[in-house]
Amino acid sequence: MQFRKKDLLGIKQLEPEEIEVILETAETFKEISTRPIKKVPTLRGRTVVHLFYEPSTRTRTSFEIAAKRLSADTFNISASTSSIVKGETLVDTAKNLEAMNPDVIVLRHSAAGAPHMLARRVEASVINAGDGMHEHPTQALLDLLTIRDNKGTISGQTVAIIGDIAHSRVARSNIWALTKMGARVLVAGPNTMIPQDLDKLGVEVFNRLEDVIPEADVIMMLRIQLERQGKMLLPTLREYSKVFGLNEEKLSTAKPEVLIMHPGPINRGVEISPSVADGPYSVILDQVTNGVAIRMALLYLLIGGEKDE
Amino acid sequence: MQFRKKDLLGIKQLEPEEIEVILETAETFKEISTRPIKKVPTLRGRTVVHLFYEPSTRTRTSFEIAAKRLSADTFNISASTSSIVKGETLVDTAKNLEAMNPDVIVLRHSAAGAPHMLARRVEASVINAGDGMHEHPTQALLDLLTIRDNKGTISGQTVAIIGDIAHSRVARSNIWALTKMGARVLVAGPNTMIPQDLDKLGVEVFNRLEDVIPEADVIMMLRIQLERQGKMLLPTLREYSKVFGLNEEKLSTAKPEVLIMHPGPINRGVEISPSVADGPYSVILDQVTNGVAIRMALLYLLIGGEKDE
Amino acid sequence: MQFRKKDLLGIKQLEPEEIEVILETAETFKEISTRPIKKVPTLRGRTVVHLFYEPSTRTRTSFEIAAKRLSADTFNISASTSSIVKGETLVDTAKNLEAMNPDVIVLRHSAAGAPHMLARRVEASVINAGDGMHEHPTQALLDLLTIRDNKGTISGQTVAIIGDIAHSRVARSNIWALTKMGARVLVAGPNTMIPQDLDKLGVEVFNRLEDVIPEADVIMMLRIQLERQGKMLLPTLREYSKVFGLNEEKLSTAKPEVLIMHPGPINRGVEISPSVADGPYSVILDQVTNGVAIRMALLYLLIGGEKDE
Repeated sequence: MQFRKKDLLGIKQLEPEEIEVILETAETFKEISTRPIKKVPTLRGRTVVHLFYEPSTRTRTSFEIAAKRLSADTFNISASTSSIVKGETLVDTAKNLEAMNPDVIVLRHSAAGAPHMLARRVEASVINAGDGMHEHPTQALLDLLTIRDNKGTISGQTVAIIGDIAHSRVARSNIWALTKMGARVLVAGPNTMIPQDLDKLGVEVFNRLEDVIPEADVIMMLRIQLERQGKMLLPTLREYSKVFGLNEEKLSTAKPEVLIMHPGPINRGVEISPSVADGPYSVILDQVTNGVAIRMALLYLLIGGEKDE
Repeated sequence: MQFRKKDLLGIKQLEPEEIEVILETAETFKEISTRPIKKVPTLRGRTVVHLFYEPSTRTRTSFEIAAKRLSADTFNISASTSSIVKGETLVDTAKNLEAMNPDVIVLRHSAAGAPHMLARRVEASVINAGDGMHEHPTQALLDLLTIRDNKGTISGQTVAIIGDIAHSRVARSNIWALTKMGARVLVAGPNTMIPQDLDKLGVEVFNRLEDVIPEADVIMMLRIQLERQGKMLLPTLREYSKVFGLNEEKLSTAKPEVLIMHPGPINRGVEISPSVADGPYSVILDQVTNGVAIRMALLYLLIGGEKDE
Repeated sequence: MQFRKKDLLGIKQLEPEEIEVILETAETFKEISTRPIKKVPTLRGRTVVHLFYEPSTRTRTSFEIAAKRLSADTFNISASTSSIVKGETLVDTAKNLEAMNPDVIVLRHSAAGAPHMLARRVEASVINAGDGMHEHPTQALLDLLTIRDNKGTISGQTVAIIGDIAHSRVARSNIWALTKMGARVLVAGPNTMIPQDLDKLGVEVFNRLEDVIPEADVIMMLRIQLERQGKMLLPTLREYSKVFGLNEEKLSTAKPEVLIMHPGPINRGVEISPSVADGPYSVILDQVTNGVAIRMALLYLLIGGEKDE
């Protein structure tokens, strides 16, 4: 099966077979980043624009490294320096970019659905690098790759996602991705951070971290958005950390081969203790490494194939 | 005829024959941006520095894309991050850049004449990417290319420039460019926005938009600088829009093949209505596409030729 | 002798023979920047990350130009846009970068010792681009190269360093570098800007500029940090300039072949008068040119050699 989509907007729209193609392509690209000469000419002369309306060094750098290792030319546009400050709309900005013949626009935007709207308006391929509280599909794909690398398969694994499920695009994309690939998904977090209709997505909801830890093959901790703290419905960060933070003591009831994941950046001592984040079960840095491979795979699948031949 | 200038500082200094060479060179470069591999090795190993003292994502990105499609290495320096914040003068900054052996310095600066001063001090070629309210020559050249592409010729066309003529470097460069190439130039705008000695430049001045629309083969709308609004001598934006904004009703008296141009970014609903900006007569996005070609041509003409041989 | 270090953290750790290797390698790289095609494929496919926690266009641009002239891929991360704003620690940021397989991390940080700590934690080579008031080794190396180019040798030269010695990483690295290479080092500055134990480093301390000028083969003026002015213990900038600023009058007692150096950016009329900065003895712009060559040499010595074979 080939990958025939123009854009990568979310996990929700992907078939399991498409996800499989992405993961397998990423697997073949992982090796390139371990060579002394970390570069192949695959996308030479292609133009990749990173259009970021929210600051994100990690995700942008990962995309930029992925593009340059495939020899594409990259351009970074961030909201703070762009004509967005002059009041231009996203569509006008994008149509203007389009007129410069980019092959891919990688968009991060605070509005859910912004990449979908953009994709309908431009001929370039659009990759969603995070849209509001909606989706963050490349994060979910790199998470899948990390689980598969470590567990051999995704199907049949029990994955626990812990934290602020309601406001997390990482959680949303991972729930779609994991259930599509046959994993069992448990979530746990404060009542106020669990959306009401989660069970419709095939997810089992728990309120205590202690209930999910012994069940889980994979524990995926979410980042607490410190900037949203004023609106948090738990008394304090200290309280949150005590109840939902992962530390060695709580981890003592986990399965022996459990994987600990986190999308980063980590709030050490809040949602995860330093000894767990840096401990033997943590694959947090593998996730970062896999992020480059997933983004190389997507760039290749979206613009590397047909146009060449 | 060859292009023998060291710098591209303004339209005022150019001969019509030099403009012709630029346009014809740009024409040959347009095709490169439509290829899957949008890159030629022409300027490999050349160093192009973008030194921007005013924010401008569009113009900078256009220059950066132009340079990279010619395989040059590009470096971006913006006022907010540079040692300008440490109080260094433009000349010191430029002399320092010079010591790193750049081939081209693309300068945007709020002071009229800054690129001219710079060009006398450095050996590198200087391209003016906008100096205060003085000139924006690459904009005028891309406008010429857009008119020529659509009308076959520039000579003999009647071009109406509408808006704040007095404070617009786009207007100034276009008046030089269009009159040199044999076009008839009409301008219209509020009294307070029309410089007094325009007729000396061979331009016909009108106060009503309605007077110039039926005459024009090309209507070039200028951007209203919303940030200058407090100093505007019209009562409100709403009033400005009513009197000098271009909408479908006013356009109904235009010639059947009229071209609508705008340098961007557009204030939709202020100087131009969305239906006109996106309508069948609009070549606004062609202007953006031509911007890349013009900038490729200039880089090539300034540094691509003689040094190679 | 080969250069076998993983990192370039400071001058203090270098043997004179290692400094010699760096200077000689830089000498061979200088010529590349004078070619029309200023690029060699030496580091093609290598990844160089510039991680700057303090703004510095000059130093970053110099490193970036050096890396690109060796065909490396470069990535810029600055504190203001990075996840540092989300509270992430330097180590977490670095471990994350590491997971993307960079070959070199160039770090500027306000904390003395930050590059040393980083170097112990990551496999990538670390280059110190300035750490607090501690070291700025690439500046000292480019200063050595400039002296050697102009004087033939460093050993035996008398070098006077003038200004705020106590708070200057440039002074500290140069004191190590010059004494290691056999130069005689004199310093002069206000009492409050001279560290107490300087004589232990083999440096002679003076309080009057007039005392050192006639002795010096090289006069190295330091930049006064205008932002620290409130904390200065001299009455005013005007007073500082009068006593410790270098002007033509004071220079009249200097040796006939004296070299005037300054790390830039210059405060014209404060620590140095314009006529001296731009005068016949000034090698300030040579220093900038040599900065690119030194940084090319270091990138080559750290990652260009062994991995290839």
